[in-house]
Amino acid sequence: MYNESALLTDQYELVMAQGYWELGMAEQEAVFYLAYRSNPFEGDYVIAAGLAEIIHHLTQYRFSETDIEYLASLHTDENEVLFQPAFLTYLSQLKFTCDIDAVIEGTLVQPREPLVRIQGPIIQCQILETMLINFINFSSLIATKASRIRLVAGDDPVVEFGLRRAQGPNGGLMASRAAFIGGCDSTSNMLAGKTYGIPVRGTQAHSWIMAFPDEVTAFHAFANVMKKHTVLLVDTYDTLTGVKHAIEVGKVLRSKGNDLSAIRLDSGDITYLSQQARELLDNAGFHETRIFASGDMDEYQIQTMKDNHAEINAWGIGTKLVTSYDQPALNTIYKLAAIRNDDQTWNYKLKISDQPEKTTLAGIMQVRRYYTQQKFISDVIYDVELGINDAFVPGSDQYEDLLVPIFRQGKLVYQQPDISSIRDRTLAQMRHFMQSHHHKYPVTLEKQLRELQRSLGADI
Amino acid sequence: MYNESALLTDQYELVMAQGYWELGMAEQEAVFYLAYRSNPFEGDYVIAAGLAEIIHHLTQYRFSETDIEYLASLHTDENEVLFQPAFLTYLSQLKFTCDIDAVIEGTLVQPREPLVRIQGPIIQCQILETMLINFINFSSLIATKASRIRLVAGDDPVVEFGLRRAQGPNGGLMASRAAFIGGCDSTSNMLAGKTYGIPVRGTQAHSWIMAFPDEVTAFHAFANVMKKHTVLLVDTYDTLTGVKHAIEVGKVLRSKGNDLSAIRLDSGDITYLSQQARELLDNAGFHETRIFASGDMDEYQIQTMKDNHAEINAWGIGTKLVTSYDQPALNTIYKLAAIRNDDQTWNYKLKISDQPEKTTLAGIMQVRRYYTQQKFISDVIYDVELGINDAFVPGSDQYEDLLVPIFRQGKLVYQQPDISSIRDRTLAQMRHFMQSHHHKYPVTLEKQLRELQRSLGADI
Repeated sequence: MYNESALLTDQYELVMAQGYWELGMAEQEAVFYLAYRSNPFEGDYVIAAGLAEIIHHLTQYRFSETDIEYLASLHTDENEVLFQPAFLTYLSQLKFTCDIDAVIEGTLVQPREPLVRIQGPIIQCQILETMLINFINFSSLIATKASRIRLVAGDDPVVEFGLRRAQGPNGGLMASRAAFIGGCDSTSNMLAGKTYGIPVRGTQAHSWIMAFPDEVTAFHAFANVMKKHTVLLVDTYDTLTGVKHAIEVGKVLRSKGNDLSAIRLDSGDITYLSQQARELLDNAGFHETRIFASGDMDEYQIQTMKDNHAEINAWGIGTKLVTSYDQPALNTIYKLAAIRNDDQTWNYKLKISDQPEKTTLAGIMQVRRYYTQQKFISDVIYDVELGINDAFVPGSDQYEDLLVPIFRQGKLVYQQPDISSIRDRTLAQMRHFMQSHHHKYPVTLEKQLRELQRSLGADI
Repeated sequence: MYNESALLTDQYELVMAQGYWELGMAEQEAVFYLAYRSNPFEGDYVIAAGLAEIIHHLTQYRFSETDIEYLASLHTDENEVLFQPAFLTYLSQLKFTCDIDAVIEGTLVQPREPLVRIQGPIIQCQILETMLINFINFSSLIATKASRIRLVAGDDPVVEFGLRRAQGPNGGLMASRAAFIGGCDSTSNMLAGKTYGIPVRGTQAHSWIMAFPDEVTAFHAFANVMKKHTVLLVDTYDTLTGVKHAIEVGKVLRSKGNDLSAIRLDSGDITYLSQQARELLDNAGFHETRIFASGDMDEYQIQTMKDNHAEINAWGIGTKLVTSYDQPALNTIYKLAAIRNDDQTWNYKLKISDQPEKTTLAGIMQVRRYYTQQKFISDVIYDVELGINDAFVPGSDQYEDLLVPIFRQGKLVYQQPDISSIRDRTLAQMRHFMQSHHHKYPVTLEKQLRELQRSLGADI
């Protein structure tokens, strides 16, 4: 319901839209691009995500009758109507007619690279700013965080557990999708399972244990219900006593032809407890019973536990993943890059800043990635009209243009992959990237594009 | 659409629900409570919010046909159906029938105090866990952050600007609502304006300036459209030159009977620039033109700028507010506190932890706040059946029980206030609290409740 509303924008976008309209500039053709300024988590990449939400939004884009009524009700501090009736009539008839090219989901990207390029009437490009940033910013951040967790977890299953601490239900839903795209194997979020077809997994809560007279009784009750699928949470009272109780119940399970699938640790010194639990399980013959760990962890803690030889086989990662706890926002920008002159030539635009990373790029940009079967070699940002020399950069034998056509004159021209294919793309991109970056991954501006920036006064 | 789904829960809640059902425990009466463990932002309070979302969710609570179909499609790793058909039939007929008491929105609360108490069939209490935490956790966090910004901003208008960097559109929507409840004056988020009736405000973006041949032309164009309501963003090229251009345009505005309402600073050394801009404006006779500041700020930066005598009249606060950047999640918990015995007595429940702040409380809890016309004196947590001695604590002459009836046997019995009243309550609570806490605000357990915890082995 909320995702679809054309009011998913900031007040000033509509105020400026009215300005363009009043000045007769509304239909002037412009090019904007979306990029991010620096890599999050002191890392060296971002996994792009969020395009599916943008497509969902734009394929049903319109100002509804109640949207227009709401806009008509607004007044300035000086008590004049904020939006003129004729402008609201214009808005009520507005159709999305832009071209959009974008990096597809699951693509590894770098700072300054355009992730979305939009070309069309300036009034549409302006109003869509907030929505485009919102969707790409959050999903890409979480997909990136998940990919970092995937890297340190190796082949261990990783379940995303974040719904309760997520930033609202929809924040949780988008986080579950992005976490799966980034490399998680499953989610605890049932709504995400239903909505996106992500595998759902879960264990057992303390409240189950507490609802019974004692831990053993609670374990037996759960095992009677779950049979082969029994996972027991062992830390409600004393963790290692809990493990012994789980083994006791595991023996009964075996006597009935079932088995103890896993135990879960959720508090305390998990590395130490996992080693002790492994020993207890192994000594009792439960070599196949897995140890599942959870409790406010992120990629740093997983790495430390792995370094300390924790005996953990699966990970439940919640709060720190879905809120991107150590950096809760990506510094995404959306900038005007060119505006069409009356004579149909482009008036290229950039914004110069004292801080070089804040200077924006002018042009109708595309990103070409050079690579081999094994690894990425380098990316080159170029202008699609100024062109690029096709010759492979040294060491590469293939290339791919990262931005692909998504909309043409407002029509969807992109066939969306299923979510597992997106996740596979992330994992493949990560493999290629990990092979390539012994030092900082090279991203350069194509010569003519660089000349264009210099001609506009940029010091690059 | 997503907020309403009964699938807004974790997989294990439904797995445990099936367990309770299979064991014939589904309808056993239980009491759970929701609280948070410690104050965020190294602060000394939380502003409760999120109840409206809970009410919205529960007043239309049911598993839809497609929810049930989805659940029926799930299998365990051992390829057995995860949910039995008879259990799914039970779920499809499930109605929400619990009692809920909760702290109303805009109430200042403390760690360990129950914010929500739910009493009813254990199966319902279990399934609702994830949803209850999700709504309270996020909204309370943002309302608290906003109240801290309100405190340091004094009487200056504060506009919440966060939609683009929020965690999804719904994250943005809930953040805008919570930020207003916490004390912001308005939002840039049009959808929040429409949905909740929050005042919307905005200024001007760099892209407007860049769409014109030069800054002065862009300013004149905007002023022609905006008239009395003109706010000019002065930092696209050189900030102080931008201020001079704004003054030039302000003079033209005045010649037509309008005025320059405000300028906006968005980058650089904003304290210094605001002082220089104030001087330029004053010298040109623009004493009434306000200076609006934005750009990745939070309460700490506002305080520093105020301490350094920044000449700023209004604040636009985005990313760091809506993502609660320095602490993106509250440590909310939801715990079983009692379960009904066959003989109708209560079997009180608590979970003891080595970390005292992680030990949970048993009982059917209520919070009584003692206060005077001017300030809060102390809070006492008590058990509604064990009772409390009504005598006012020393220094108080009034009291209020913070949890009020919201649902009775699944029926809504609470009349929701409008959002401005909620915001007023926050501001009043803050005034009272600021008068009261020369040292740590006292929260105690009523004697019989404390005895109950001790009888269950808790060391308090």
